[in-house]
Amino acid sequence: MYDVIIVGGGVAAFTAALFTGRRGLKVLVIGKDIGGQANYTDTIENFPGLPAVGGYELVSSIRSQAEKWGSEYLEAEVTRIKSTETGFVVTAYGSQYKSKTVILAFGKTPRDLGVPGEDELKGRGVSFCATCDAPLYKGKTVAVAGVGDVSLDAILLCSKYSKKVYALSKTDRLQGHPGLVKAISRKTNVELVPFIQIQEVVGTTQLEKLKLHDLATGQQRDLPIHGLFVELGYVVNADFVKDLVQLDDQSQIVVGADQSTNMPGIFAAGDVTNRHYKQAAISAGEAATAALACYDYLARLEGRFGLTSDWTQIKRVK
Amino acid sequence: MYDVIIVGGGVAAFTAALFTGRRGLKVLVIGKDIGGQANYTDTIENFPGLPAVGGYELVSSIRSQAEKWGSEYLEAEVTRIKSTETGFVVTAYGSQYKSKTVILAFGKTPRDLGVPGEDELKGRGVSFCATCDAPLYKGKTVAVAGVGDVSLDAILLCSKYSKKVYALSKTDRLQGHPGLVKAISRKTNVELVPFIQIQEVVGTTQLEKLKLHDLATGQQRDLPIHGLFVELGYVVNADFVKDLVQLDDQSQIVVGADQSTNMPGIFAAGDVTNRHYKQAAISAGEAATAALACYDYLARLEGRFGLTSDWTQIKRVK
Repeated sequence: MYDVIIVGGGVAAFTAALFTGRRGLKVLVIGKDIGGQANYTDTIENFPGLPAVGGYELVSSIRSQAEKWGSEYLEAEVTRIKSTETGFVVTAYGSQYKSKTVILAFGKTPRDLGVPGEDELKGRGVSFCATCDAPLYKGKTVAVAGVGDVSLDAILLCSKYSKKVYALSKTDRLQGHPGLVKAISRKTNVELVPFIQIQEVVGTTQLEKLKLHDLATGQQRDLPIHGLFVELGYVVNADFVKDLVQLDDQSQIVVGADQSTNMPGIFAAGDVTNRHYKQAAISAGEAATAALACYDYLARLEGRFGLTSDWTQIKRVK
Repeated sequence: MYDVIIVGGGVAAFTAALFTGRRGLKVLVIGKDIGGQANYTDTIENFPGLPAVGGYELVSSIRSQAEKWGSEYLEAEVTRIKSTETGFVVTAYGSQYKSKTVILAFGKTPRDLGVPGEDELKGRGVSFCATCDAPLYKGKTVAVAGVGDVSLDAILLCSKYSKKVYALSKTDRLQGHPGLVKAISRKTNVELVPFIQIQEVVGTTQLEKLKLHDLATGQQRDLPIHGLFVELGYVVNADFVKDLVQLDDQSQIVVGADQSTNMPGIFAAGDVTNRHYKQAAISAGEAATAALACYDYLARLEGRFGLTSDWTQIKRVK
């Protein structure tokens, strides 16, 4: 019986393991792989205290830190979590693990274009997070492919760093918040590429160019660039907990200020929650909060059940 | 005219500077000193990604990271912030600085015992944060002096690590949540020291002992210990912003999920806010959120004022 099972393998999961482990709890982390969202990034420059760190390197380092405090790690996919009288039963690869509490920190997956070359060049020119990576393309040429305000925001941000920003659109314009559209229209280094669809992402070790299909003329052409930002939003694979905790309309787990869900004993942290901003530093903060709230929940449980003695029994110092 | 002035000099302040700077904003940090709350700790073991780091070292490193993105730092005490038509005027040491937005991140000060020796041995045996430092006293003897649930929580936590925990109380018992009191009463390594007042904290380079005054007998005695946890809560010195933003009954700044205050354009992050848990990692997460929310606020402002051109003016790629 674990005090807490943490589902996930990224910054949030191992930070939660660090804080619960350091509070003396018996901790098991179950993750599909190590790294999570951080794996999609070459270099993280905005994690406070670490001027430049690889995504995988950051997560591995938090993992070692957590294991110093006794937390265990199991590489497996959690397919079911069941609430019981004494806590929770977590199923992963057919085996069952019991715990008093659960912290859900299994992140999100960025929605991709689904075109050839995209997967291979992830973290090598193809980025899914402008906030994370835009400054890496200072003075370079980039393209932004996406929809909605997130994409407009990425274009604006890239325009501050890159020499040239191609704003790719399937229609004749960019759509979203009029203020953002207007702000972009003032940027002389942003160029709209309308009626366009990406057919292929091309590069050997690094991204070199895009193969574009012109929806208006039917013609094909190449667009040489250093960086491509795919801003199509994220997918949360929270199906396996949808009967357990409340999800919002984007399948994100709804959390309170202390990262608790609507189910007592279950907490959530990181990209999987309904908090607006998604950043490694924010995930870490959420995870620390979830861990401390989880500890407090267990302390209250402990107080509620089975404890009968009283302070008066404690001997006075001689 | 700065885009944002950040008030504070700790983890939250410089993390906010890093994230706003990296978003291309013109940033000024004004702090009384560098380090903030982190200065009260010898070694921070629970900052994700940094296995063991000095408090001052951590803050200095975030500061360098922020300055790489252009943020400026001014060592001064902010005494007034005034809202104007175009933003805010911040007064520090008689000089005035203008900005469009403000992030308040000036932290809290732990309430101290006010006895001789306490100040000199801060971070050298005298700690104000059990969550931060309890694991540093593994196998050692410590004392906890404090009031309320925070103090009970500190006693419980110390009992997991230390060989012996003295729970100091001015009365005949510990007061607080009955569950916590009962949980403590089961710990065989916790000993209540009732009717006691600390008169002096003694040590040369490290804490050695406490001079105690027995309130029942009037006698004095020494208690040799390795660590003293002072858990008397915190003081927020938010008087200078009390007419600007909403404070709670502990003078903490009330924030929303995006770290905004009730005053448009003013955000808050870190120990100064009304969030329950206070940890360096949590402060960093709050600061990253505040910074991104501040950027979005400015983007909306930009969109609202003065921009008239349109996407149709942007040339199509040749």
